[in-house]
Amino acid sequence: MTNAPWRDPALPAEARVDDLLARMTLEEKTAQLYGVWVGAATDGDGVAPHQDEMTSDFDWDELITRGLGQLTRSFGTAPVDPALGAQALARAQRRISEAGRFGIPAVAHEECLAGFTAWGATAYPVPLAWGASFDAALVEEMAHRIGRDLASVGVHQGLAPVLDVVRDPRWGRVEETIGEDPYLVGTIGAAYVRGLESAGIVATLKHFAGYASSAGARNLAPVRAGVREFADITLPPFEFALREGGARSVMAAYTDTDGVPATADPYLLTELLREQWGFTGTVVSDYFGVGFLKTLHRVAGTEAEAARAALAAGVDVELPTVHCNGDPLVEAVRAGDIPESLVDRAAARVLRQKCELGLLDETWTPEPTGPVDLDSTANRVLARRLAEESVVLLSNPQGLLPLAPDTRISVVGPRAADALAMLGCYSFPSHVGVNHPALPMGVEIPTLLESLRTELPDAKITFTEGCDTTDPDTSGFEEAVARSTEADVCVAVLGDRAGLFGRGTSGEGCDVADLQLPGVQAQLLDALTAADTPVVLVLLTGRPYALGRWHDRLAATVQAFFPGEEGGPAVAGVLSGRVNPSGRLPVSVPQTPGGQPWTYLQPPLGLAGEVSNLDPTPLHPFGHGLGYTDFTWEDTADAHARTTTDEGHDVSVTVRNTGAREGTEVVQLYLHDPVASVTRPDVRLIGYHRLTLTPGEARRITFHFHPDLSAFTDRTGRRIVEPGALELRVSRSSTDVVHTTHLTLTGEERHLPASRQLTCRTTTA
Amino acid sequence: MTNAPWRDPALPAEARVDDLLARMTLEEKTAQLYGVWVGAATDGDGVAPHQDEMTSDFDWDELITRGLGQLTRSFGTAPVDPALGAQALARAQRRISEAGRFGIPAVAHEECLAGFTAWGATAYPVPLAWGASFDAALVEEMAHRIGRDLASVGVHQGLAPVLDVVRDPRWGRVEETIGEDPYLVGTIGAAYVRGLESAGIVATLKHFAGYASSAGARNLAPVRAGVREFADITLPPFEFALREGGARSVMAAYTDTDGVPATADPYLLTELLREQWGFTGTVVSDYFGVGFLKTLHRVAGTEAEAARAALAAGVDVELPTVHCNGDPLVEAVRAGDIPESLVDRAAARVLRQKCELGLLDETWTPEPTGPVDLDSTANRVLARRLAEESVVLLSNPQGLLPLAPDTRISVVGPRAADALAMLGCYSFPSHVGVNHPALPMGVEIPTLLESLRTELPDAKITFTEGCDTTDPDTSGFEEAVARSTEADVCVAVLGDRAGLFGRGTSGEGCDVADLQLPGVQAQLLDALTAADTPVVLVLLTGRPYALGRWHDRLAATVQAFFPGEEGGPAVAGVLSGRVNPSGRLPVSVPQTPGGQPWTYLQPPLGLAGEVSNLDPTPLHPFGHGLGYTDFTWEDTADAHARTTTDEGHDVSVTVRNTGAREGTEVVQLYLHDPVASVTRPDVRLIGYHRLTLTPGEARRITFHFHPDLSAFTDRTGRRIVEPGALELRVSRSSTDVVHTTHLTLTGEERHLPASRQLTCRTTTA
Repeated sequence: MTNAPWRDPALPAEARVDDLLARMTLEEKTAQLYGVWVGAATDGDGVAPHQDEMTSDFDWDELITRGLGQLTRSFGTAPVDPALGAQALARAQRRISEAGRFGIPAVAHEECLAGFTAWGATAYPVPLAWGASFDAALVEEMAHRIGRDLASVGVHQGLAPVLDVVRDPRWGRVEETIGEDPYLVGTIGAAYVRGLESAGIVATLKHFAGYASSAGARNLAPVRAGVREFADITLPPFEFALREGGARSVMAAYTDTDGVPATADPYLLTELLREQWGFTGTVVSDYFGVGFLKTLHRVAGTEAEAARAALAAGVDVELPTVHCNGDPLVEAVRAGDIPESLVDRAAARVLRQKCELGLLDETWTPEPTGPVDLDSTANRVLARRLAEESVVLLSNPQGLLPLAPDTRISVVGPRAADALAMLGCYSFPSHVGVNHPALPMGVEIPTLLESLRTELPDAKITFTEGCDTTDPDTSGFEEAVARSTEADVCVAVLGDRAGLFGRGTSGEGCDVADLQLPGVQAQLLDALTAADTPVVLVLLTGRPYALGRWHDRLAATVQAFFPGEEGGPAVAGVLSGRVNPSGRLPVSVPQTPGGQPWTYLQPPLGLAGEVSNLDPTPLHPFGHGLGYTDFTWEDTADAHARTTTDEGHDVSVTVRNTGAREGTEVVQLYLHDPVASVTRPDVRLIGYHRLTLTPGEARRITFHFHPDLSAFTDRTGRRIVEPGALELRVSRSSTDVVHTTHLTLTGEERHLPASRQLTCRTTTA
Repeated sequence: MTNAPWRDPALPAEARVDDLLARMTLEEKTAQLYGVWVGAATDGDGVAPHQDEMTSDFDWDELITRGLGQLTRSFGTAPVDPALGAQALARAQRRISEAGRFGIPAVAHEECLAGFTAWGATAYPVPLAWGASFDAALVEEMAHRIGRDLASVGVHQGLAPVLDVVRDPRWGRVEETIGEDPYLVGTIGAAYVRGLESAGIVATLKHFAGYASSAGARNLAPVRAGVREFADITLPPFEFALREGGARSVMAAYTDTDGVPATADPYLLTELLREQWGFTGTVVSDYFGVGFLKTLHRVAGTEAEAARAALAAGVDVELPTVHCNGDPLVEAVRAGDIPESLVDRAAARVLRQKCELGLLDETWTPEPTGPVDLDSTANRVLARRLAEESVVLLSNPQGLLPLAPDTRISVVGPRAADALAMLGCYSFPSHVGVNHPALPMGVEIPTLLESLRTELPDAKITFTEGCDTTDPDTSGFEEAVARSTEADVCVAVLGDRAGLFGRGTSGEGCDVADLQLPGVQAQLLDALTAADTPVVLVLLTGRPYALGRWHDRLAATVQAFFPGEEGGPAVAGVLSGRVNPSGRLPVSVPQTPGGQPWTYLQPPLGLAGEVSNLDPTPLHPFGHGLGYTDFTWEDTADAHARTTTDEGHDVSVTVRNTGAREGTEVVQLYLHDPVASVTRPDVRLIGYHRLTLTPGEARRITFHFHPDLSAFTDRTGRRIVEPGALELRVSRSSTDVVHTTHLTLTGEERHLPASRQLTCRTTTA
């Protein structure tokens, strides 16, 4: 077999895969269509299948004689030294390749949402914090480093990024998203993909598609959405990330939309994804998602029917089990119930990816080639930069921030002295559920309290917890208020404890019924703000919470979204003034806890009006964020202009730093479409640019607007550019407009491919 | 002109209308396409246009020289004696017919949601209470009486019923709906239509369609729904009410669904409604709905564009203004921007309806022909019966209810001594905003407190309000608890104050952010249930509220939904035991206030699961309700059976009253579809039957199930009956199953017309 065409690296991948497939038995082909959840031995001696009620009983040694499509999360079960973990994975791969007739290893995949979800790996800020940075280039750099770290331990595929667009902030997985705007999610998400793929790692776009709209924000509930909402809000980030990122894998979502489960949707996974968008990679199921077609969706009566529905729709790999694509699939093909061509189609895709990854080559070796350091200094520097850019200063009415160096500070709150406060659900300790109080991540994570003491060595800092994140005990309030009364300022550090499936207040399966701060933290804040000492509220959260109740009583509000292992110094730097805050809100901060769902992408009917007593106007709008210097926006573009439906038009503004220190402005471009053939959001983001200026410095930023940016899905399902009036609003936030260009599009209506979204190029001078 | 063909009652309506249209100027034709909001003079001397910022400035005398399509709400502005109002309306009609060239009067329409919304007219229970009665025949009888009363004062058209299916209980208009199940809404709604139409009144189905799904339950917010949800849940009641009720008018909804405003949707208003369903009546706009195409939806740039979009979609009449269909329409037709054929099409429909109403006949007279009594004894008897049937006994764990005749009762709560507590938003005082403390409706409305004193003359009854429905003042709690401590039982009467646009806690524009009891009533109930005296909770509400917090501490719970002018005696009768409660929940009662939206029509993914910490399981399920006697269900149908996809199958059960008093059982049939090509609700109602039995009596009820009842909309949008397994669950409620027939449908998949819904016939023996 060693001279077979499929072994020949000189031949095209298609030819090699065709040859290989023809040599394989049905069992060998189906073995490429599933994964097995394993855990690496802590002594480096291979991996063992993860055994629980969700994974089947099977004989591992027998199973791998057929080959194996994927190895799931070998670093995700227990704290294992990364170098030993890499060794264990390599040994397992040797065993798999030696057990099968063809010597083909598995694709090893791992979670890497906010960094490699492994013990000892850098915990970067969560995606919602990337959104707040409005800095795609930095996210790309981070993803590249994540990719290199994954590759260094033998991992091929990363199950990220999450491209779900927030539709209901109560959902537990909001922390995993980049925000509530598809343009922001798409541009930042595509940057992440470029970074990961440039390190040779297969990026996996998830969750395709609709998951974020789960009804009532209950994780994995049915999705109620129409085709236009789906096409214009849910899909665009995926199209961005494929076209501008080059992702090689897509994960089918758990949910159904309007009755059709994504995992069994041929329109979504084949017609749109492959035929219209030209995707050629692999589609993997979300964990147990194929079996859920039987148990949760009831569109399949048996495991074999589930396998057939998923394969027919375009799911190539069942993760992380053999439930459906194992023996049930083999037997159903033998019985003539499932055409073998469906198996061949999926296996060809898997094998082509393995071919491209070099896994079919005789030169393949699984052993790590370099030293393993998953938390290098360079990583930490990057984690720090991104954390600093992601902190959003929401309010600072009297300029209390930055704090004076010798202030008496009463730090209060359950998130101040807990390193886990910096981490989201897809960090190693929160996700795996192990708890190592000293070194929960295997990496150093300063708390905000520690960081503040480092940052302000001359300040007199006291600390009292006040309460827990979830425990109803309020007995600590009295001391918290007393300490604050003796201080110049109270820094209340509140927020979420990330966890999995109800073990936290934010994270997968940690959904909330409303947007009140968790536990008794709202009451603690009531008590603190009732005293005379000014209160600076610092939020370390996975979602926006309603802050209207305290707005008039807060001296300042700082919103950080799980800023990662360098989050303590980053937030402390904002409080001290070392860092000039530059984050902008990727999600609206509501006034009141109820009345959800709501995000800023509303037609006039979705804004405040006289026909309902409920006013959904947020306290802080999408795109909002303050800093410590002043900017003027000058020499704006023409107030009126004309172009055609297929010709670009530039809009410029000169931004000048008129303050005393360096600072960053995020110039945002929003589109307002006054009249259209279907209802349109009042405004939506179509461009942005981060601009860092020294005192006195001015730069001119130009948005190269193309009419494709105004496209939407019409009544017939076509994506069109309509002639007529548009407003291009150069803005500081979605509601703070500096300049409007009234642009008239002349000429014919134009049709674009489905869900086609453009990036708005910007240049500076 | 008196000998013109259009005046000849012997000719068919089509011929008369063709002739008339040909004689009319453009101004005269467009004048048929709008209404004017008027108020009747209290001295019977005609009507005057209602002047406010929403209605245009125009010269009434000049305007009516063109004719007039509709007269809006002449009884709805101020308290006017009904006989004088009828006289005023007749005089106005004389003036209109004399002012125009053709002598054609207007169609006079009125609100009649829960009775004629006029001073002095019977206030029946609100639609949510009809749903609770599960008694279509009684609702039909009520609607017939409403229709006769409308006709007696010269009204031609009633703007009811509301056929919106509850999708989010927070919506203020939930009180106006019949419930959260389309089968219940459709069957009761069709009965209402039959009743109204049998009295010669044009019934108006509203709001067509989607309004109840307004996002975040904010009145008139955009609707997020897919085509299958729309076809299977939103549309069926309308199809029922047209096919089985014969309604002659439909009102286009304010909302847009997935970007397409109903008022500008040709698919909905023409293709589906007229071409598929065969509707030949008139489509009217919701008030100001045509203009909203410009101001709220922005799919039209001018009033003329709004007129064009609405006419092209199939809206015939703009209510209640001349904003768009007045001069803007005339000018646009003259300018060639709108084809005159659109005007002709709409005018023909309006004139055909006027022809059928006799308004084109020379024999037409507007003056009332009989005495006017809008609150006859017969009305009140009916209002009482329906109120009694609509009270739902939710819990009575120790059998505390009925109350003993000589009990010491502490009545507490802001709803006990207020007659307005019995009325919904579409009652005269709540809707019009006038307030006559002595006779708010012009009819007698006993409070629950008064009724209880009448009902239990030997009881020692004290009363204290405790708190208001909205005021945060809790100073009355202490006395309320003290009084209760001295009593044998505390009857806490809590709930809503209905109002319009924020002037109440329930009603149009009175939406809520969560399902906590309004104001400080939850805290009052905390205080009452913390004491030793058993608490009977009586709710007079327009929506379900979360009751999980007190469930274990309540001695009994009685849910009434604005039971109308005879609601006091009806609820008191349930408390005393004179009335054996027989209502069943038309909406789920939740455990907790947050986590909305949720209704019981959920596929497995929408039920409680391990993937979210939020458990949506209601405290009391749809269909639940208790009584004061015992029933056994015997001799159930076969456990297994087969039929084809187009042949019926009977399911029977014998219900026996084994208790000591007469009582009513509501036998419910639910469908469970184990495997389908799209996700399906775990269960849904497909049949029901109210059965009143004397002690010892038994009757056999048979559901004549037809497979069409299992139809749903498939992935391609067709309504189909799929072969395969079904479960027919004979049940006491949506979760309390007494017997299951496992039915296998053999044969071919069958296709039905869009949204086709069948009624399940039942017979008893």
